Amino acid sequence: MFWFVEKHRDDTGILMGARRTWTYHSHFQEIAVLETDTWGRVLVLDGLIQKTDRDEFIYHEMLAHVALSTHPAPTSVLIVGGGDGGTLREVLRHPITRVTLCEIDPTVIEVVKKHWPDEAAVFSDSRARIVHMDGRQFLEETDETYDVILVDSSEPVSHSRTLFSDGFIHQVCRRLNQPGIYVSQSLSPFYAAPFLREFVHQLRERFDRVEVYLAPVAAYPAGWWSFTFATNSTHINPKDPRPEVIKRLDGLRYYTPQVHKAAFALPKFLETELEP
Amino acid sequence: MFWFVEKHRDDTGILMGARRTWTYHSHFQEIAVLETDTWGRVLVLDGLIQKTDRDEFIYHEMLAHVALSTHPAPTSVLIVGGGDGGTLREVLRHPITRVTLCEIDPTVIEVVKKHWPDEAAVFSDSRARIVHMDGRQFLEETDETYDVILVDSSEPVSHSRTLFSDGFIHQVCRRLNQPGIYVSQSLSPFYAAPFLREFVHQLRERFDRVEVYLAPVAAYPAGWWSFTFATNSTHINPKDPRPEVIKRLDGLRYYTPQVHKAAFALPKFLETELEP
Repeated sequence: MFWFVEKHRDDTGILMGARRTWTYHSHFQEIAVLETDTWGRVLVLDGLIQKTDRDEFIYHEMLAHVALSTHPAPTSVLIVGGGDGGTLREVLRHPITRVTLCEIDPTVIEVVKKHWPDEAAVFSDSRARIVHMDGRQFLEETDETYDVILVDSSEPVSHSRTLFSDGFIHQVCRRLNQPGIYVSQSLSPFYAAPFLREFVHQLRERFDRVEVYLAPVAAYPAGWWSFTFATNSTHINPKDPRPEVIKRLDGLRYYTPQVHKAAFALPKFLETELEP
Repeated sequence: MFWFVEKHRDDTGILMGARRTWTYHSHFQEIAVLETDTWGRVLVLDGLIQKTDRDEFIYHEMLAHVALSTHPAPTSVLIVGGGDGGTLREVLRHPITRVTLCEIDPTVIEVVKKHWPDEAAVFSDSRARIVHMDGRQFLEETDETYDVILVDSSEPVSHSRTLFSDGFIHQVCRRLNQPGIYVSQSLSPFYAAPFLREFVHQLRERFDRVEVYLAPVAAYPAGWWSFTFATNSTHINPKDPRPEVIKRLDGLRYYTPQVHKAAFALPKFLETELEP
């Protein structure tokens, strides 16, 4: 057994024993795949776990369906990051007409196609377009606009840092239709509450409504993750999924309308942290 | 740095680096205390983390306040286990008249008083009585009855196994007032869904209403924990905390009435697992 450790702080982390491992080096990062008994296959970028077979559905369902169930009629979606294909899979459950996946690193998608052959079909869905560019640069150059923009990035270090910058948020606003929704993963409320506070304050400068919601993702730091939802449309209530959308969604394992609403109930300490 | 590992399965676990450690051997178990930067002081029984300074408030607030906020007028409480004092601390925030803490192992309380001197005061509160007995034996022998019985045990192995047995549940029913509420910690929904299913089915044999609720507890397996709530009183709605109770609670860091309600929104996979 090969022991992989992801340190969440200098003195704590998660331990996974792998039966087999594969590593790849792209222009952007080190990519590893672990084969484990408990977690199934695990994708690791620069030492940070991105997804495991066992719990990825929670993260991806919650990233995609909260926005797509509250937007009144989403047809066009942009995913920034998301090279593992999980968010794309969830978005494609909705009757959207086009989805662009902007993943900076083509090697991630190649590795995913190789090690998760069952997941590879989403990348060639006729409604999906894959581009390999930095998310901010793509938004600066594209003529497209979107009903929903989802940021499914790795942590805000190295090449993902720009995806939390004010310049990037400005581009998101420019390319978001009215009504439009932007959701970004926003780290662990347990380890990164100060980051979350700063991020929410930054978004409040550009959006009328900013809400944080939470989900348990066992393989991520503290097993507890946050997402930030922002909109300038007064008609959109982030906490109120449309029942007719839910009814046609099939195959979900975490998301329900009740779970959707419950995810916005923030712990007292986080309510305090995020006060305006 | 001394590295402590709690394995959640053969091939996965949590890693904590301790600056100092202390170990004690009681008649019942091995007791360890770790001093860490990230988690503060950590209490470990037979290799399993029981509480850390950093996240114990989530577990203890959720174990105590859900029952005490939904019971119409709780005055007497029994805590089975709970030797670390956290549940007792939370129960004492309510205007109850007496609380019995039935902790089998006196050494746990001695160790807690020594390493958490700030927490020691709860054990000598005038409303609290501490007994050292097996929980089932205590319930068989006592003449007391309770409005609320809380089971704050370690995992159902070794001496804690009886606390999940049908014989124990039978005693709980005998000693519960009408109206009365029984809440037990019930392991991780991530790792122990089959156990949870069996436990809920077992409780449905004796209680009219059985509900599972969840909370994120970072230092526990998968960072995600379950509690099971049972009552035979039709007047008690587990999902509906009384506002006047909440108003007088001070100093909470996790629990809010919204968090209380949200905790009962179960993931799709768990809804399916717990179907009658």
